[in-house]
Amino acid sequence: MLSVPLRPPVNAPPRIIIEHPTPAVDGGRYAAKRCVGDRVEVGADVVRDGHEALRAVVRFRPERERGWREAPLTPPARGSGSTRWSGGFEVDAVGPWLWTVLAWSDPFESWREELTRKLAAGERELDSELAEGAQLLAAAAERAAGDGAGDDLEAIARAQTILESPASSFEERDDAALSPAVAEAVGRHPDLRDAAELERPIPLDVDRLRARFGSWYELFPRSWGGFRGVEDQLDALAGLGFDVLYLPPIHPIGVTNRKGANNALAAGPDDPGSPWAIGSREGGHTAVDPALGTLADFEALVVSAREREIDVALDFAINCSADHPWLTEHPEWFHHRPDGTLKYAENPPKKYQDIYNLNFDSADWRGLWEALRDVVRFWIERGVRIFRVDNPHTKPLPFWEWLIRGVHKDHPDVIFLAEAFTHRSLMQALAKIGFTQSYTYFTWKNSRWELSEYVRELADGEEREYFRPNFFVNTPDILTAYLQEGGRPAFEARLVLAATLSPSYGIYSGFENLEDRAVAPGSEEYLDSEKYETKARALDGPLLPLVERLNAIRRASPALQRLDDVTFLETENDALIAYVKQREENAIVVVVNIDAANPQEGLAVVPHDLGLPPSFTVTDLLTGERFAWGIGRNFVGLDPAARVAHVLQVTT
Amino acid sequence: MLSVPLRPPVNAPPRIIIEHPTPAVDGGRYAAKRCVGDRVEVGADVVRDGHEALRAVVRFRPERERGWREAPLTPPARGSGSTRWSGGFEVDAVGPWLWTVLAWSDPFESWREELTRKLAAGERELDSELAEGAQLLAAAAERAAGDGAGDDLEAIARAQTILESPASSFEERDDAALSPAVAEAVGRHPDLRDAAELERPIPLDVDRLRARFGSWYELFPRSWGGFRGVEDQLDALAGLGFDVLYLPPIHPIGVTNRKGANNALAAGPDDPGSPWAIGSREGGHTAVDPALGTLADFEALVVSAREREIDVALDFAINCSADHPWLTEHPEWFHHRPDGTLKYAENPPKKYQDIYNLNFDSADWRGLWEALRDVVRFWIERGVRIFRVDNPHTKPLPFWEWLIRGVHKDHPDVIFLAEAFTHRSLMQALAKIGFTQSYTYFTWKNSRWELSEYVRELADGEEREYFRPNFFVNTPDILTAYLQEGGRPAFEARLVLAATLSPSYGIYSGFENLEDRAVAPGSEEYLDSEKYETKARALDGPLLPLVERLNAIRRASPALQRLDDVTFLETENDALIAYVKQREENAIVVVVNIDAANPQEGLAVVPHDLGLPPSFTVTDLLTGERFAWGIGRNFVGLDPAARVAHVLQVTT
Repeated sequence: MLSVPLRPPVNAPPRIIIEHPTPAVDGGRYAAKRCVGDRVEVGADVVRDGHEALRAVVRFRPERERGWREAPLTPPARGSGSTRWSGGFEVDAVGPWLWTVLAWSDPFESWREELTRKLAAGERELDSELAEGAQLLAAAAERAAGDGAGDDLEAIARAQTILESPASSFEERDDAALSPAVAEAVGRHPDLRDAAELERPIPLDVDRLRARFGSWYELFPRSWGGFRGVEDQLDALAGLGFDVLYLPPIHPIGVTNRKGANNALAAGPDDPGSPWAIGSREGGHTAVDPALGTLADFEALVVSAREREIDVALDFAINCSADHPWLTEHPEWFHHRPDGTLKYAENPPKKYQDIYNLNFDSADWRGLWEALRDVVRFWIERGVRIFRVDNPHTKPLPFWEWLIRGVHKDHPDVIFLAEAFTHRSLMQALAKIGFTQSYTYFTWKNSRWELSEYVRELADGEEREYFRPNFFVNTPDILTAYLQEGGRPAFEARLVLAATLSPSYGIYSGFENLEDRAVAPGSEEYLDSEKYETKARALDGPLLPLVERLNAIRRASPALQRLDDVTFLETENDALIAYVKQREENAIVVVVNIDAANPQEGLAVVPHDLGLPPSFTVTDLLTGERFAWGIGRNFVGLDPAARVAHVLQVTT
Repeated sequence: MLSVPLRPPVNAPPRIIIEHPTPAVDGGRYAAKRCVGDRVEVGADVVRDGHEALRAVVRFRPERERGWREAPLTPPARGSGSTRWSGGFEVDAVGPWLWTVLAWSDPFESWREELTRKLAAGERELDSELAEGAQLLAAAAERAAGDGAGDDLEAIARAQTILESPASSFEERDDAALSPAVAEAVGRHPDLRDAAELERPIPLDVDRLRARFGSWYELFPRSWGGFRGVEDQLDALAGLGFDVLYLPPIHPIGVTNRKGANNALAAGPDDPGSPWAIGSREGGHTAVDPALGTLADFEALVVSAREREIDVALDFAINCSADHPWLTEHPEWFHHRPDGTLKYAENPPKKYQDIYNLNFDSADWRGLWEALRDVVRFWIERGVRIFRVDNPHTKPLPFWEWLIRGVHKDHPDVIFLAEAFTHRSLMQALAKIGFTQSYTYFTWKNSRWELSEYVRELADGEEREYFRPNFFVNTPDILTAYLQEGGRPAFEARLVLAATLSPSYGIYSGFENLEDRAVAPGSEEYLDSEKYETKARALDGPLLPLVERLNAIRRASPALQRLDDVTFLETENDALIAYVKQREENAIVVVVNIDAANPQEGLAVVPHDLGLPPSFTVTDLLTGERFAWGIGRNFVGLDPAARVAHVLQVTT
């Protein structure tokens, strides 16, 4: 037996379903990322029973604004069977945005379509239909009047009169009913009673341009004469085309268990220690290492850099040396063993005896969160707008989500770069919960197959909506075997690949000097690593002219300022990797010989579907040479003795 | 200036994120579909910062049950970089189910892994580590005691004692710490304080088997002597292997504007009219056409059919003839023109002058919903458990969602088949909101390319989780050009394709008699269509032996009872379509010559990755012949004069 049946809902539920909005991350659970000035191309399926004509708009606003802005959406092509509406809007402010789709039925348009089909079928007994149309126009006229739209009201009322007048001829009434101008006037005053919206607005995080596009240079200030010495390099760095100057931690360095040269367990009296062993009697995360200068010097550096449109990026490393003030002020924030001893950082068999991790499972985790927030706040107040976050993947995701969201509330222009090398899901999770950019596995992708697969992974699918890679060619921790073995051609190849594949890329000082000696065979650690020593550095490396040229090309080429506009080309030679990047009128073809040791010849096969003309000229932006190319097979040969890469601009 | 910063949350948010559950439809917005007895294979990404060992289980229950049932999940393979956990559970009851994933950290396992790595690295100063382990064991022992698990408690406490005793040797302590038995005992009493769950439980609709697998036969009872005459055919239908007997509407047929033979506008005095023009002075949707018998006769038919394990499926068509009682009882439920006239159904230039649609925008839409619910309830109370719903895509989606959910609350065994031919999104939407099965575009997919593309569309991706096709070879409305032109071989080819590609398929009476004459060139309407006439029908068509054989093969072949286990094979001849269906040990290869006019030769190329042995025997289940086949190319030739298809069972 049936139990008492369910009653219908009190209000009629919307007959229209709107679904599958793009761009959306996990169906809108997380925000997609865009930069200010971007046009956001949106799409959604609008589904309704029956054959009613539909209308849809995208509504969008910065989260802080009250009212929605609105832009029209284009319906799917007639007869395509598609239900996909599309359109877009420009984001003109940084910070969180929301957007949604609103759709409604258009009975007047449905009526027009039906009438058109009947007329086409030769029907002429349409009095009843025309009376229906007049009724719809009367309702539209009322809405136009309510909207105070005099011109529309007049146009609608005139058509209504013709439809209703027995004096009108069939043709007159037909003309009035089907007039596009009348339909447009009606469309401007929709009946929204049956309108439906997306289940929830879709979040969108809008950053400043630097979040997507920038050339990074990393240096240890102690090797350049401290903050003042670094300040002296700003003109040169600006001239080389760098946008971001990234400094490893600038705080006082611990003395207890300080590491010596080449990671020796015991430091000599003059060894400066690793800057990641943060904290000494001179202070912790909000102090500066006196060896580098004063806080005022640092602030002056930030200001000078900003004058040259360079951001100073600080390292945010949640570690403490044994001498960090927090160890005595907040012992409860650290891991203790049952015997009471402190647990230093380790990732067996690796040991970091000079570093203690904070314990996020501490009973006072809230106090710890607040202290870390205050650190970030401290540096923001001193002008810093970019943080390179050390090992974020070993701290709780909810902490980052809270921290980044909180910072962005007041400073939406702050950029967080995740230095995470871990499994893909966790790297994606960090990006989803708020990290602006991330380190990547680019460093270890050397073959044509690895590179193209990895870049496609980043550039295709949903990941491109929220995960922004930053391709570093090296770091103080990573001197790859490819660089150790390949000599200058290897350095050049990696530089060209990083600078042209990824809109954000970076160099750690020394790369341009072709530094390639590892501390031991099979190790990726530098010999006499700058992590434990002070070097005498200068901007005099042999690769700097190429760096300067590439940075200039990047700034002049919109296609190189995006990730997802890449198409890899068949080369018929695995030692040659080739790809096209296209952005509106700008098309750049890059060919790199990744075999550092030998000349290689092959093809760059340009497919039809890129939309390039059958034949065109390419200009090598590195050399100025010009070549005649076309759709199909184009010969390429690169001898590392002379050059490892073409960076070709298509001119038609 | 920074405003007052956000405070941390009061409770520590979970450090574990669980995401991307499968099977899920639109991220869990809609239910995936399964049948009772199925094992539901589930997966989810479990992501946590750091390197903690994790545990996860799937929790599941029928929606009505209170407590969760639980099954373990298998972690991703070590070193795979994957975060995907997988497992499954069996659904043993029809109705709505829910499932979720619960995951937590396992500090003892993390500690064991770290200790193992340290021992492997040759470390022996591990007192501090072993003390930590003892502490973890003490906590586990407490939980085991709380759970009343004496054996586990004992095993854990013993290991703890060894670890803590200064008398134990290093090896003894090491053994105790790393014992898998101890780890398992600890694992049985987890500390769930940091456990995380999916954001929301994932819905799953579990139907009876007929929802997925069944052979349908459609007939007009008036051509078989009414309900009693149909009852006389049940033994024969059961013998042919049919599971569902589908009847077009059985209600009184309108007299006003009744259609005559071949859709003539005026009916003759003896014309019975279209059964879809429902309602007369004799009643509406809850009455039966007296020409077919009485309600008691119908009920007897349903009972007799059930005795033979045949379901009687009723047509649920929300139309009314001009004589339907609702037109006078509820005129407000219908579309009226401004001049007061009723609007009959039309889809210009097509007109259905004998039918009036209900108006779901009526002010009394709630009354209409209730009346329609009562119609369905009426027939359920008379034993009907399958409804073939006419044109559901022209009625509001929320109405269907409400109706189906309401019916399933008391009768989860009721099946709703959507007779929808419309754009893909709307067909998908109907399936998502509750329709058990759907008509498809199979009827018009004739070429090898069209068929394989269409079936892959249904079998791949998320659609297979909720959209169950029913492949009808013909309907009273659809006699395709392929059948009109191809003669018996075309009928045989379509029959084999429908019966072997789709677990649910159907035949409309007359197909087995090779009826192939259309009312006019270019039309898909039958000449002298049974929609407007009474025929003298009998189960005597020449195709019935093939139908009987195919239905028997289907029942004996698990591989043919699923959709998504299909792999299309290269044939090197577009006139030959070949596919394998595999389910556990059962593998069926089907080859069909879709060129009805000519003999065709080609190959069936069996790829390696199907897991079949290098060589094997195939037995043609239609003829009993045996052939030696193998991985790679197998010759096939089919001459329509003799046969159009192989249905081959792999025997190894």
